[in-house]
Amino acid sequence: MTIRKRRYAAPLEPVAGNGLLDRRALLGRGIMFAGAVSTGVGSSRTTAAADPLRDDPWSLETGAITPALQTPSRFEKDVVRILSNPNGEPRTSHARTPHHLLNGTITPNSLHFSINHSGIPDIDPDKHRLVIHGMVKQPLVFTVDSLARYPMVSRMAFVECAGNSAGMFSPQPLQASVQALHGLVSNAEWTGVPLSTLLEETGIDPKAIWMIAEGADSLALSRSLPVKKALDDAMVALYQNGERIMPGNGYPMRLVLPGWEGNMQVKFLRRLKLTDQPGMTYFETRTYSQILPNGKAYRFYFVNEVKSFITHPSFGQALKEPGYYEISGIAYSGSGRIAKVMVSADGGKSWAQAALQEPVQSKAFTRFRVPWRWDGQPAILQSRAWDEAGNVQPLRAQFVAERGEAAKVPSPLGFANQHYNSLTSWAIDSKGEIKHVYA
Amino acid sequence: MTIRKRRYAAPLEPVAGNGLLDRRALLGRGIMFAGAVSTGVGSSRTTAAADPLRDDPWSLETGAITPALQTPSRFEKDVVRILSNPNGEPRTSHARTPHHLLNGTITPNSLHFSINHSGIPDIDPDKHRLVIHGMVKQPLVFTVDSLARYPMVSRMAFVECAGNSAGMFSPQPLQASVQALHGLVSNAEWTGVPLSTLLEETGIDPKAIWMIAEGADSLALSRSLPVKKALDDAMVALYQNGERIMPGNGYPMRLVLPGWEGNMQVKFLRRLKLTDQPGMTYFETRTYSQILPNGKAYRFYFVNEVKSFITHPSFGQALKEPGYYEISGIAYSGSGRIAKVMVSADGGKSWAQAALQEPVQSKAFTRFRVPWRWDGQPAILQSRAWDEAGNVQPLRAQFVAERGEAAKVPSPLGFANQHYNSLTSWAIDSKGEIKHVYA
Repeated sequence: MTIRKRRYAAPLEPVAGNGLLDRRALLGRGIMFAGAVSTGVGSSRTTAAADPLRDDPWSLETGAITPALQTPSRFEKDVVRILSNPNGEPRTSHARTPHHLLNGTITPNSLHFSINHSGIPDIDPDKHRLVIHGMVKQPLVFTVDSLARYPMVSRMAFVECAGNSAGMFSPQPLQASVQALHGLVSNAEWTGVPLSTLLEETGIDPKAIWMIAEGADSLALSRSLPVKKALDDAMVALYQNGERIMPGNGYPMRLVLPGWEGNMQVKFLRRLKLTDQPGMTYFETRTYSQILPNGKAYRFYFVNEVKSFITHPSFGQALKEPGYYEISGIAYSGSGRIAKVMVSADGGKSWAQAALQEPVQSKAFTRFRVPWRWDGQPAILQSRAWDEAGNVQPLRAQFVAERGEAAKVPSPLGFANQHYNSLTSWAIDSKGEIKHVYA
Repeated sequence: MTIRKRRYAAPLEPVAGNGLLDRRALLGRGIMFAGAVSTGVGSSRTTAAADPLRDDPWSLETGAITPALQTPSRFEKDVVRILSNPNGEPRTSHARTPHHLLNGTITPNSLHFSINHSGIPDIDPDKHRLVIHGMVKQPLVFTVDSLARYPMVSRMAFVECAGNSAGMFSPQPLQASVQALHGLVSNAEWTGVPLSTLLEETGIDPKAIWMIAEGADSLALSRSLPVKKALDDAMVALYQNGERIMPGNGYPMRLVLPGWEGNMQVKFLRRLKLTDQPGMTYFETRTYSQILPNGKAYRFYFVNEVKSFITHPSFGQALKEPGYYEISGIAYSGSGRIAKVMVSADGGKSWAQAALQEPVQSKAFTRFRVPWRWDGQPAILQSRAWDEAGNVQPLRAQFVAERGEAAKVPSPLGFANQHYNSLTSWAIDSKGEIKHVYA
């Protein structure tokens, strides 16, 4: 096999600095690539006899037995979650999604991020109960089986920890993968019963404007939730990407609050108590109230704002040679659909609009893609997203001015600050190596 | 806890026989349910002190350690694929998706159906090659790494074996679950490179109208594919629901031909050879050419036609008591989007229109749902789907007249016939037990 002649002289002119091409080039018709090599056997007239393929060992023997549950290839053994507490010491356990090794928009259930503060409870679904009580007209108890008789809905939704991307508050850019930096967000199709349907069953005292959601984990993690969100798009979910929810994600049922911070989407949900005031629980007053540079705190700060990051190429990968690459990444917003993603290859001097994978769904991952021809010179890749509500990812200088870098009061969860939604920058040097930089 | 008073006097009148309700009732506002029980502690004025929840054992102890790859709860051990060849004897292995235990639209990768004729090859992705040659201008060799540099697309698509639902050709209705009857279809988000992009790289001899796709399994399964489909929506897929393709589904790369029968979507794809005629391969001439009652055969019969079946309730489940239930199921068409699904509870005498879960995507699963109030009397549930191309699922009498019941020539794969897309009927008796019937 011989290296194929490169065809750099593509008819498409760059639309932004450092070789960003028009997103319409993704549809083909004009762009030339450098990924393939010639078979070395010439044109069609001469290949009829020559066969460029050898038989590999796996083509010469019967393969493995089909298992009841299939798992990834042994060659994908590195595609796992990074664990912060692999030995289960008595503290919080984080498991981060390897976004740099995935593509598309769905996070497979095995790789959905999870955070548990007191381990993963082993819940018998036949014994688990959900109670809705407090300021309701008729308190009710639901089992998994009784919930399964109610009208259901399915929707794609991302779940993101408020502390995702906490490393981005570091004064110096951490040399870490997109998994380590941004792995506390994932995206799945959730199926369950709209909470509004259940509240219609119980009735609501007009004075009830909050409810306290409590989990069946041994810490009984609880958060206060406005009734208004419960009546909007909240769901008591039973299924995650088609199957029952993973144990680490809330089996047998969890609250799904599309677009709101993950810890409020209470897992192992066992109680919703309607009240006329918030509960001021441990997790909402101490853990998830971030301290600002001016000494005040965000309290009841629920929405995960518009955000994006590039997954390919990113830290830990390397470009082997100049030529065509696809830049792609993930964008999402707790306020609705992604409206636009712009990508820069020159550290923000110029921008090209990315293609968005259809269908673009509200409060869910949107994969964006931009064609790029790397000329072998240093480049800095960034993405910046807008949502349909008109929000835009803040530039880093603006973000740091408002929100500070390292937090003044480290949280007991071990992260420095919360709700990072500014840009991520990957610097590519002339060798094709990738570093994390602030730009 | 006391059984809650039933509120049968819902304001919504049925829209079809045996208690089918208007699909708009799924949005709430008026429908009453019977699934929940009272907490037994009275109204909101008295519940403040009483707590209806006891602490279960899992709420009293630290939970399990977070794993690198999470797996379902041990209480979901029955949610597995049914295997036709669990000991890996030298014959075809089928693994069927448990649709009656799933909900939503996505099939998790662990449960995606698979059929392999000579086991599952253990392919080293760094050594695997895809060759496109034959009647092309420039034959090319692609590695996994080189493919990953090309522009990608993601799309939801069902894959269905031509022999799915073969049991429905039985003269007597088989008493079997929706998994056993219809488990050879699944739905996933596939991400990869449009085949049209790769063919633009190689160029195509204008005389080439077919290509032969070959897998790297030890049988070198091969099928002939019109160039027209390759230039339409075919994809060389690398990812399945976000992660690399499962070994049983074609790792490290497979052809995805949205809407076409599964065996053509060649797994372990290693060769595309462009030709001016079809290959008349073993699998297209012997295995996948179904014999018709008139003695002729369907040859090059590619599209999986519009189809639907009810998954909840279905065989193997039981209704414990009269009252409200949701009827839901899956609809799909190889010709585009699902346009409409009608549901009957009286064996086809009257029909109600189902709600379709948005977004309805082309050549992908669409979940349909209908609210239903069961009065405890016998009922026969059926669904019937239409697609945007105007196709409709044929009624069973019409289908059997055209296509026969048991095939005259059993196929070597062990199924009686192919491309079943007529109705499935579940009969519910007064005890709530469910049987498979022809109606």
